[in-house]
Amino acid sequence: MGKAHSIALATYPMYVWPAPYYPVRDLIVEINDELAAESQKRFGFNRAGTSWREAVEDPEIDVIDILVPNVMHYEVVMAAIANGKHVICEKPLALTANLAREMADAAEAAGVVNQVGFNWRLAPAVQLAKKLIDEGAIGEIRSVRSFWLGEFFNDPSVPLVWRFKKDQAGSGALGDIGSHAIDFSRFLAGDITAVQGIQHQFVTERPLLSGSGTGPVDVDDATAFMLKFASGATGYIESSWAAPGKKTSAGFEVIGSTGSLSFNWEHMGELQYYDGRDSADRQGYRTILTGPAHPSGDFFWPISGYQIGYADTKVIQIADFLSAVAGTTERPQTTFREGLKSTLVEEAVIESAKSGLWTPVQND
Amino acid sequence: MGKAHSIALATYPMYVWPAPYYPVRDLIVEINDELAAESQKRFGFNRAGTSWREAVEDPEIDVIDILVPNVMHYEVVMAAIANGKHVICEKPLALTANLAREMADAAEAAGVVNQVGFNWRLAPAVQLAKKLIDEGAIGEIRSVRSFWLGEFFNDPSVPLVWRFKKDQAGSGALGDIGSHAIDFSRFLAGDITAVQGIQHQFVTERPLLSGSGTGPVDVDDATAFMLKFASGATGYIESSWAAPGKKTSAGFEVIGSTGSLSFNWEHMGELQYYDGRDSADRQGYRTILTGPAHPSGDFFWPISGYQIGYADTKVIQIADFLSAVAGTTERPQTTFREGLKSTLVEEAVIESAKSGLWTPVQND
Amino acid sequence: MGKAHSIALATYPMYVWPAPYYPVRDLIVEINDELAAESQKRFGFNRAGTSWREAVEDPEIDVIDILVPNVMHYEVVMAAIANGKHVICEKPLALTANLAREMADAAEAAGVVNQVGFNWRLAPAVQLAKKLIDEGAIGEIRSVRSFWLGEFFNDPSVPLVWRFKKDQAGSGALGDIGSHAIDFSRFLAGDITAVQGIQHQFVTERPLLSGSGTGPVDVDDATAFMLKFASGATGYIESSWAAPGKKTSAGFEVIGSTGSLSFNWEHMGELQYYDGRDSADRQGYRTILTGPAHPSGDFFWPISGYQIGYADTKVIQIADFLSAVAGTTERPQTTFREGLKSTLVEEAVIESAKSGLWTPVQND
Amino acid sequence: MGKAHSIALATYPMYVWPAPYYPVRDLIVEINDELAAESQKRFGFNRAGTSWREAVEDPEIDVIDILVPNVMHYEVVMAAIANGKHVICEKPLALTANLAREMADAAEAAGVVNQVGFNWRLAPAVQLAKKLIDEGAIGEIRSVRSFWLGEFFNDPSVPLVWRFKKDQAGSGALGDIGSHAIDFSRFLAGDITAVQGIQHQFVTERPLLSGSGTGPVDVDDATAFMLKFASGATGYIESSWAAPGKKTSAGFEVIGSTGSLSFNWEHMGELQYYDGRDSADRQGYRTILTGPAHPSGDFFWPISGYQIGYADTKVIQIADFLSAVAGTTERPQTTFREGLKSTLVEEAVIESAKSGLWTPVQND
Repeated sequence: MGKAHSIALATYPMYVWPAPYYPVRDLIVEINDELAAESQKRFGFNRAGTSWREAVEDPEIDVIDILVPNVMHYEVVMAAIANGKHVICEKPLALTANLAREMADAAEAAGVVNQVGFNWRLAPAVQLAKKLIDEGAIGEIRSVRSFWLGEFFNDPSVPLVWRFKKDQAGSGALGDIGSHAIDFSRFLAGDITAVQGIQHQFVTERPLLSGSGTGPVDVDDATAFMLKFASGATGYIESSWAAPGKKTSAGFEVIGSTGSLSFNWEHMGELQYYDGRDSADRQGYRTILTGPAHPSGDFFWPISGYQIGYADTKVIQIADFLSAVAGTTERPQTTFREGLKSTLVEEAVIESAKSGLWTPVQND
Repeated sequence: MGKAHSIALATYPMYVWPAPYYPVRDLIVEINDELAAESQKRFGFNRAGTSWREAVEDPEIDVIDILVPNVMHYEVVMAAIANGKHVICEKPLALTANLAREMADAAEAAGVVNQVGFNWRLAPAVQLAKKLIDEGAIGEIRSVRSFWLGEFFNDPSVPLVWRFKKDQAGSGALGDIGSHAIDFSRFLAGDITAVQGIQHQFVTERPLLSGSGTGPVDVDDATAFMLKFASGATGYIESSWAAPGKKTSAGFEVIGSTGSLSFNWEHMGELQYYDGRDSADRQGYRTILTGPAHPSGDFFWPISGYQIGYADTKVIQIADFLSAVAGTTERPQTTFREGLKSTLVEEAVIESAKSGLWTPVQND
Repeated sequence: MGKAHSIALATYPMYVWPAPYYPVRDLIVEINDELAAESQKRFGFNRAGTSWREAVEDPEIDVIDILVPNVMHYEVVMAAIANGKHVICEKPLALTANLAREMADAAEAAGVVNQVGFNWRLAPAVQLAKKLIDEGAIGEIRSVRSFWLGEFFNDPSVPLVWRFKKDQAGSGALGDIGSHAIDFSRFLAGDITAVQGIQHQFVTERPLLSGSGTGPVDVDDATAFMLKFASGATGYIESSWAAPGKKTSAGFEVIGSTGSLSFNWEHMGELQYYDGRDSADRQGYRTILTGPAHPSGDFFWPISGYQIGYADTKVIQIADFLSAVAGTTERPQTTFREGLKSTLVEEAVIESAKSGLWTPVQND
Repeated sequence: MGKAHSIALATYPMYVWPAPYYPVRDLIVEINDELAAESQKRFGFNRAGTSWREAVEDPEIDVIDILVPNVMHYEVVMAAIANGKHVICEKPLALTANLAREMADAAEAAGVVNQVGFNWRLAPAVQLAKKLIDEGAIGEIRSVRSFWLGEFFNDPSVPLVWRFKKDQAGSGALGDIGSHAIDFSRFLAGDITAVQGIQHQFVTERPLLSGSGTGPVDVDDATAFMLKFASGATGYIESSWAAPGKKTSAGFEVIGSTGSLSFNWEHMGELQYYDGRDSADRQGYRTILTGPAHPSGDFFWPISGYQIGYADTKVIQIADFLSAVAGTTERPQTTFREGLKSTLVEEAVIESAKSGLWTPVQND
């Protein structure tokens, strides 16, 4: 993640020019001097340090970009806000919705620009989907199915890192990747009001990092749930990091009353769009290759289909953040409050999986 | 449907030769003399009639193929069984599971070959999926998502035919097309033990057939549900006849512990198969074009990808039926009991949509 | 081929009703009594025989459908014409263009309806491509690339059947399957005026049918050529029966001045269409699933994407033939003259591959 | 292009770490002070200048990266080489093969690392194709079809910039994008020995940049040619910037004796691979999503399908260049000599299009 953010910060002004701000990679903080020095060089920062607290208190610094382990998000974010810094924080915002709410409240009260790292929804094809929906291009939304399916932790020999422990990660596939699927659905169809989920654990023991013996996994490998939107639409969300064949299968299918849309990150540069108003003999999903005619596509290359990559969606995230800092927009698309709402959905899903009942989702 | 069945009966011996039986299209029954005479000629039958009862009692006739409105299935099937005929009945077997169970019990007690028209699962690509699963090619099944999504009744100007009335059709999209999606899931992953569903009605009034005024629709336009299999796997099933962009989007995605499979009728001649045992740099879904190397593919053309169509899956259905009549196989794949089990799932889904609770599915 | 034609004749009235004629499968001719009797039963004919000459002279018979080995086409066709029969002949019409021209001339002079078996162009998606071109939906055609690529003779253990002998087959992949690719290009973009080709032989010896020893192959396994159309457009045609991975990869890509089209038989039920007039942010190839809104699609199923198969394109061929017999259309789409023109292209390609020069194509 | 190169230089050490060198963006040269100052800031260089000559003579500078108009390549490259600099030059190396040959000879004689900007072949999926071919995964290559098709200059209102003038651009679509398609074919199947081409001009006049009146275009909008490889394989190459529907359709299809491969930049992160040795019922093109298991894929993200973009292929180009500077590899993959060979093919194509004859290609 340090890699992705650094790449985005370095390339942002090259892509977006003229831009409201030219980000200076000033101070990078790592857990020890050696790592800090290496990262400073590798990622092109002016200074290196080992105290995040000094960074958040440094008067020279305007923006804090937080990539620490999930369990530390709360403390660092709150300190940064207390110092009046604009804040970018990787998702999940916090291990619980209560903490996340405090963070969102604090940021809003302090009037600092705040953003959670939901870059997946910022891909031009996803932004185009939203734009088409807002323009009425598919009518009224009837259902949304979204998903993030991978296989990267299907192998039981992957050791017992923090992601497999509930007290450090909050949840497993649900929070790690399902959160992006939740964000897709919320972004496209609005607030979710109730969920009903199922969670699976396929690998229950993993090798200890120490090298001998195994320890218990206590998070989900796969979570799926049905959901209801405030709008009346309904949906389904799947997340799994143990789905063989799925690599980065993150996407959605939105069915409206007059058209539909679908997207899969595995073809990140394209959106499928069906317009029911096309004449009967010429109807069909259009494979729209994104480019300069699409949202944020003008940052990149002059020809559709030239392809942008994962890091480029982080560039869009930085651009979205800096537009809010500059006051061009009121706030970033993916504020802390958006992060909170996603966490609220996750908590309701976990509860519903235990109770077997439709569980309401709080949205504030 | 008369068309599809007649085509299948006529072409069965041309495709499958030598075959255990040469079907004679002997007697066709229609609602009046004119229609009967026309159908006799069009579909190449020896005789025409207007009494289904005479047909089921005719000693010259061995097999009764029933394509009457759903509401009549029970009576005709029971009479045919009582007369010792082998019976093919279009789905749904009956308007209620109780009736369907009587029919299955009666057929089994009488020892007649009985088949319900779940031809969709008989497509070679679907049969190949089952074969691969049985061979362990994807390991243990973790989840199955299946669906039948179309847009053919999205248009609110489609008049209020019997399919939109619960007392004649039983249910809407759920029974009409969702039943095939249920059959896909059951076929591939076994009995379903619990469901939790949501039903939608998008068009509540439709023009009366009489030409003036409208009347109320009382069936679902779309139904979706989560489900649990007896095996411990879970899944999701979607059916809608009001999903713009979807034409004949009937298919499934099966995730196993070491591989996965997916299929969509819109590319009926192919199966996507991922084998997690392929070497790391050569892994990827294989697009398998079905042909002579695949189940029932040898009936058709000597080259994969030559393409078979909808009617050809009815040929496979006839072949499956006649193999059972000949005693080559114990019973057809899609017996009445399979039809019953699908209906039991549908009833549980409807109940769960009302109660909002996980609802157990009876399997006998 | 007897199978495909019989299926088409049997199912034609079931699909196309009311139809101008109800084809009676009257007399089937085979090389001996046993085969004739078997075929009569299997394919549902009234009578069986072993003399094609008796058939063409039989006053009860109106249409002769010729599926004999290529080398016999000329004699049978000419006799049928001489007896005033309407004639369907499988491609290639004859081993040389000179013979084919005689056949076309004779049929036209006799005023009989004549058709060569280019059913591949009759698929609804291909007919839709032609319709869109004629409607100006892609502007002026700039280039056409067409192809028929398979792998069915890549295996060197396939024995030395007549298809591998120039004196019996005329040519190899070029005539066997390339002829359909030529027909696609000609159908969509008009007459071809010059070609420049390359031919390959990958397997030079094959096992004798006798079971011991091998004999020389003297036809092409693969032929590719560039071409010029009378219109000024240019193109490329590839044919190979030794292209691993390609199963029934028969199709085309047409680039026009304002749009484009592509098709591959491996997805026979769909056409890709790009309309450059779509707005900049909604442009993209449309995947059009064929159905009742498309040419001949109304013969089959009421829902797009239900799928038709290879035999169904033979139904369309019969329908096209009988429309001409009935006088509804002036002539079938794929007259003998179309067959002749394809053969003329093939002869020019072979000549050009030898000379290494652009070779003009005669078109009459 | 300055954008793409700057992004690559900035992100190279972030992706590739530890790396042999940490590139310092030291001096950027532009045509005037204002542009130079802006570019310095935007692209993060230490210094700005307006004299390329001072840059190539600057003893502090080790590598010259040349993005000047094609017509200036020769002079700048030769000066850089004369000063012992390692040189990166965008394609085409020069307006004529003779100049390109001088440049390649000079660079080799001087022993400087030299690279031409054929980054398209450096995409991991393309590199994987080459690796599979080298490993024998498709047997012996029989044919290669490659292409670069776009529509970006189809619009006749695009003004008469230098790319439409032969004396400044050398050729049109052929050199601009066809050169990459040539490079694909040469990379995968080796030297090309003869060509036979056709060139088209669809727009013959374009608006003058001055704003009033039009002037003549004298380069090709589309060029297509057949070709022969030294290996005995044959192929076809298409390039067009006036092909509606094609956005960045750059790719290839390679048919071998036991398998085949295909690639299209529009899905840049994936390769289609068919292995004829897979069992008969499980054969099919594999959609391989590239990631850490594939060539250069380990530079980027830990999960296949995360997606890299156009600029990332420039990172691979820099990595390839610096490996050669470090002596880890003997030379970059895309040396000036490779650039020369591509130009030699282009010249032969233009000659053949005029003469209508197969034209030999010199390869040195």
